[in-house]
Amino acid sequence: MAYFGDPLPAEDLLFRPHHSLIDQSMHARLGVETTNGDGFGMGWYGDGPVPAVFKNTDPAWNDPNLREIARQIRTPLLFAHIRASTGTPVQRSNCHPFRYDRWLWMHNGAIAGFHDLKRDMMLAVDPSLYPEIEGSTDSEALFYLALTYGLTDDPPGAVARAIGFVEASGRRHGIALPVQMTVATSDGESIWAFRYSSEGRSRSLFYSTDVVQLRKLHPELEVLHELGTATRFVVSEPLRDLQGAWNEVPESSCGIVGPGRQEIRPLSPVEPG
Amino acid sequence: MAYFGDPLPAEDLLFRPHHSLIDQSMHARLGVETTNGDGFGMGWYGDGPVPAVFKNTDPAWNDPNLREIARQIRTPLLFAHIRASTGTPVQRSNCHPFRYDRWLWMHNGAIAGFHDLKRDMMLAVDPSLYPEIEGSTDSEALFYLALTYGLTDDPPGAVARAIGFVEASGRRHGIALPVQMTVATSDGESIWAFRYSSEGRSRSLFYSTDVVQLRKLHPELEVLHELGTATRFVVSEPLRDLQGAWNEVPESSCGIVGPGRQEIRPLSPVEPG
Amino acid sequence: MAYFGDPLPAEDLLFRPHHSLIDQSMHARLGVETTNGDGFGMGWYGDGPVPAVFKNTDPAWNDPNLREIARQIRTPLLFAHIRASTGTPVQRSNCHPFRYDRWLWMHNGAIAGFHDLKRDMMLAVDPSLYPEIEGSTDSEALFYLALTYGLTDDPPGAVARAIGFVEASGRRHGIALPVQMTVATSDGESIWAFRYSSEGRSRSLFYSTDVVQLRKLHPELEVLHELGTATRFVVSEPLRDLQGAWNEVPESSCGIVGPGRQEIRPLSPVEPG
Amino acid sequence: MAYFGDPLPAEDLLFRPHHSLIDQSMHARLGVETTNGDGFGMGWYGDGPVPAVFKNTDPAWNDPNLREIARQIRTPLLFAHIRASTGTPVQRSNCHPFRYDRWLWMHNGAIAGFHDLKRDMMLAVDPSLYPEIEGSTDSEALFYLALTYGLTDDPPGAVARAIGFVEASGRRHGIALPVQMTVATSDGESIWAFRYSSEGRSRSLFYSTDVVQLRKLHPELEVLHELGTATRFVVSEPLRDLQGAWNEVPESSCGIVGPGRQEIRPLSPVEPG
Repeated sequence: MAYFGDPLPAEDLLFRPHHSLIDQSMHARLGVETTNGDGFGMGWYGDGPVPAVFKNTDPAWNDPNLREIARQIRTPLLFAHIRASTGTPVQRSNCHPFRYDRWLWMHNGAIAGFHDLKRDMMLAVDPSLYPEIEGSTDSEALFYLALTYGLTDDPPGAVARAIGFVEASGRRHGIALPVQMTVATSDGESIWAFRYSSEGRSRSLFYSTDVVQLRKLHPELEVLHELGTATRFVVSEPLRDLQGAWNEVPESSCGIVGPGRQEIRPLSPVEPG
Repeated sequence: MAYFGDPLPAEDLLFRPHHSLIDQSMHARLGVETTNGDGFGMGWYGDGPVPAVFKNTDPAWNDPNLREIARQIRTPLLFAHIRASTGTPVQRSNCHPFRYDRWLWMHNGAIAGFHDLKRDMMLAVDPSLYPEIEGSTDSEALFYLALTYGLTDDPPGAVARAIGFVEASGRRHGIALPVQMTVATSDGESIWAFRYSSEGRSRSLFYSTDVVQLRKLHPELEVLHELGTATRFVVSEPLRDLQGAWNEVPESSCGIVGPGRQEIRPLSPVEPG
Repeated sequence: MAYFGDPLPAEDLLFRPHHSLIDQSMHARLGVETTNGDGFGMGWYGDGPVPAVFKNTDPAWNDPNLREIARQIRTPLLFAHIRASTGTPVQRSNCHPFRYDRWLWMHNGAIAGFHDLKRDMMLAVDPSLYPEIEGSTDSEALFYLALTYGLTDDPPGAVARAIGFVEASGRRHGIALPVQMTVATSDGESIWAFRYSSEGRSRSLFYSTDVVQLRKLHPELEVLHELGTATRFVVSEPLRDLQGAWNEVPESSCGIVGPGRQEIRPLSPVEPG
Repeated sequence: MAYFGDPLPAEDLLFRPHHSLIDQSMHARLGVETTNGDGFGMGWYGDGPVPAVFKNTDPAWNDPNLREIARQIRTPLLFAHIRASTGTPVQRSNCHPFRYDRWLWMHNGAIAGFHDLKRDMMLAVDPSLYPEIEGSTDSEALFYLALTYGLTDDPPGAVARAIGFVEASGRRHGIALPVQMTVATSDGESIWAFRYSSEGRSRSLFYSTDVVQLRKLHPELEVLHELGTATRFVVSEPLRDLQGAWNEVPESSCGIVGPGRQEIRPLSPVEPG
């Protein structure tokens, strides 16, 4: 889940939505796993350009510190993630979001055959970035590939090259459909949301409708008047059922939301030269 | 889950049954909660009369140490428990089974209004036992009440008095239906399994049929020839669907299994004098 | 360690002093234990009257989340504590500071013979407060005794009665010198610091000199000009060696610091009637 | 600490020596760090050829499960390790001993400039072994280099090549003295103990004297008659002061102990071709 808008207490974002993050970790509705209890993380922009991250291996619903902190934090841009491990160890360094300088990155999905592809991917990471890798997940490897291919300058181009690399590497190792991903990344100003899978059947990804428009659709809804006009959510599952509120990001696309900006671009893998 | 019989590797008991403990923690079938991710514990009799306990607050499915140890332990009597907290903190001292000297105790269920009844229950615990209480759950409080009322000499009588005390205490505090419990306890030789609730609708509890009888019913089943003839399981959910294998412990009853012993007795609350 | 003064980033308080909290947990200089690695906690006043608490059982120096959060929090009143267990389990509910409504409480020391005195102390806690006790330490028991005896109205009087109760209970159980304590407590506006032990040899406790005075003593010290004039520290060990900066709280005393307030009062046990 | 000899309860090895492992983690006497509280691990050979490992990130002295398990395990070959992190995260996958098939490996020391050398070392690991790496430490990287260079066939030769590789890689990156290590490794039958550092000043490493000889030196010592005649300890610090009991492994050497075998061989780095 990603939030962008007027500074709000993290508690409102994590614990108060009709279908909150905490509830989501217990009963993920559209996810593959029925239980996402392999750790969680929260990244937010506050004091200074580098975001803070709070990550833990306990199930989100068991961490009293999370609620304590959420009550004290106000932020205009928050990432929250609940993890269902696809095999790598349950440890803080494998929890999302990952951070590099002012960038946050979180991922749902999996690199099929990562066991076989990992070494290729690691070799392709820029040697100056390589030592910064802390964990052992496919998600972090993908992040560092994207950083290698220019994420901080051109996010859509860098992600296209990262998945292009993985597709090519998959072909070399006989893995037909290596990529299954939805990704959200941010520099603290905009959010880029990517949806792509080798077989064209990615997990769901939604962004919320402009609040001004939503208020016209649902003038009776108090909560819409409490949200700032710049508010955007990017989620893997709609936070509540509300007609017209949620727009699915299409397959093979990148959605971008930011100050005065909303855009959908096509996304296809580009094999790095 | 409780096992009694020939010494078996704990791994076979925890990870190999068709519907194993690990699977159970992810997808409890008959339980109230859909996810039991608030810690787990294992108690077993090995070297010496005092059982060992291994307990942790991680979800059972995330603890690599559990599998390591389960491979190395052979035991004739094992208790395993997965916890779904009813409000008390997720910490090792609140995980089951609880131990006192050579006794193990584990509980599914809840004392309704425990917040209000706790002080009464604690005051009723024998002062010499009181300092041994380590955690803050209703389950451990019930254990120490039963110990106070003679568990080590007469388990069914002691449990009858413990629930009698709670019923009376509930009446004093205006809590109509305070008890909802299934309990298993052992001294290392026998297992006592209790099922009782104030409203007569306890959670499920089953014990397995005598293996010799089961072999006659299912002569083709290899696995029954691998199990020793003394084998008994006590479970809140059948480990696998097998006709004639599982006997439900009736409401308001105590089931006893042990060497050459199988018994069902009625259980009703007795208010301690 | 307690801080009172202009809102400062927690990071400056925890990680930047010459002899910071983190260093302290590794090499406590004056403490009894050489290593304080049994958990830590931080409580602070931020949004709203009820303080937030962040507590964990890892050693403070191993918790990356602590540093992340400390960078994002600004507070005018912070408590930080590192625990060396005297026997009770290492679990979050036993970590300091403890909180009740808007009050924080932290303790260094021990109740001798707590194993024997615990039941008496628990019985003396007001029944309406009793269910709020979460952990199993002597420190939290002392807090709830003080709350029972009027902490929120008259902190010095309540603490005098709480230690009076423990002294009397100790006499009944043949424990000659039951109390060894330094305590800090706050309602978000003032800090009360208590030093008392049955044998008159309490652990050390210091409060910092008024900043305006300190600047006159050390006009060359930049850091004193960065601190607000209302700044006060209450510590068990001086944060850095600086002539005139630290005033020892005498035995059997209560020090009070708050907005425009600095006071030392004698403290002697008062047996509750 | 490594033990080799008649099967003994792990409890005797970990908790009963005069200067036990638990004490060692609190007050390491000869180590660089004054506190080793960044996790611990135990590996032992029991049922089956593959050893079991129990590892945790809590300080060893805080893990009640460790004592529970130690009471139930009997083993002829046990490795135990307490970690003081040199910068990599405190997580189970970074705790020693590391395991590959029937081999255990544990390391005290550090690769200087590991941040710069890590990529080279990882590239040198055999691609078929690479995906088995779980953590992020220099110690595990060294293990996989040694496995790549033939550890399972020729331990001393493989370790010589592994350190040869690191020395050469250090020269390429301008790191003059990259290696500082003591290592113990085992296949379940013998123990190889290595002591080497680039500057010739490695941490201490001792092996115990043959028990039959020791009994002649100290006929009055009961404990020597309780130990089997095949008993050997390999330790970084002597378990107790006892004249003639401890032999220092010299710099740049490999000590080998096993059934009917005791040997010291010189060890020098060999750059792999």
